Amino acid sequence: MSDRPQQLAHLEHLGDATRFAGQIHALIPKCPLLENFTPAEVRLLSHFMDVFRAVEGAEVIREGDGGDFMLLVVEGRVEVRKQDRWNTPQLIAVVEPGRTLGEMSMIDGEPRFATCVAVQPTLVAVLDRESLARIIVEHPLLGAKILMELVLMLSQRLRATSDRLMQQLDEQGPHGAGHV
Amino acid sequence: MSDRPQQLAHLEHLGDATRFAGQIHALIPKCPLLENFTPAEVRLLSHFMDVFRAVEGAEVIREGDGGDFMLLVVEGRVEVRKQDRWNTPQLIAVVEPGRTLGEMSMIDGEPRFATCVAVQPTLVAVLDRESLARIIVEHPLLGAKILMELVLMLSQRLRATSDRLMQQLDEQGPHGAGHV
Repeated sequence: MSDRPQQLAHLEHLGDATRFAGQIHALIPKCPLLENFTPAEVRLLSHFMDVFRAVEGAEVIREGDGGDFMLLVVEGRVEVRKQDRWNTPQLIAVVEPGRTLGEMSMIDGEPRFATCVAVQPTLVAVLDRESLARIIVEHPLLGAKILMELVLMLSQRLRATSDRLMQQLDEQGPHGAGHV
Repeated sequence: MSDRPQQLAHLEHLGDATRFAGQIHALIPKCPLLENFTPAEVRLLSHFMDVFRAVEGAEVIREGDGGDFMLLVVEGRVEVRKQDRWNTPQLIAVVEPGRTLGEMSMIDGEPRFATCVAVQPTLVAVLDRESLARIIVEHPLLGAKILMELVLMLSQRLRATSDRLMQQLDEQGPHGAGHV
């Protein structure tokens, strides 16, 4: 990884992810990002990632922040919370090891959509946009593989979110918003 | 392109997209997929695409179908319609030249989310999954560029859809579905 993200300065930096490559590889059955990765590809990727330890209660991503990195949860548990219009945090998801967070902002640079809080002692492996760009140039097939998995993950999430939205609009009946 | 998709058999096949490369390149200002492409990259990509003509009223994608290709609208206009639970087609979007359709199914192979109908005489350039895989192997940097743009587009669409869903849930008040 290039410079360590400032937004992670409150977490303990454990160095690059190479010595966690075995542990990361063992996550594959639970890891949509890496589902088609070989052990050699995981090792190569881990050179480009840094690992951080978050104590219980630490925010690893904060809604509205900038930030051009994604996280792979290696150990622990993270809750994803988003403020509703009454500023009450709503629980959106609970994230277990193998799942990733923050892919959208890594790619598009837009502010974070939700806050992610470690609710146990948690290890995260971080990949930032600059490292992804380096992977694409130095290891294009690995880069394409990562991007392909990101497209798949986003595509599935978009289907699920669109389905929920359609259901919500349907429940308002034929005169609801969005109907023509 | 490899074999022509069976789902497009009712459209007139105009050959591969190379002779449309200039016209496709002129779409760039209106084309999120190609926004960072050079003329040379558009020419290279167009070798891997086929162009079809759809008459007014022709379906170019049908909700629920299989199909592992995406479309770039080159000329004309396409409406995106999805059935609600009363089987009434709802207009979801109107798609102008430069926009793409069907990226999700190209990537994840899941059934089409909505139906796309040409509402004017329309030209579409088609890229299928096998051609994308060939691009990634034969031209990995071009492949990575396409994938990066797909990730960006999906990411932005996911943000917009998630925002709409959150608004819908908010409008139901603090006891609505999804709140904890």
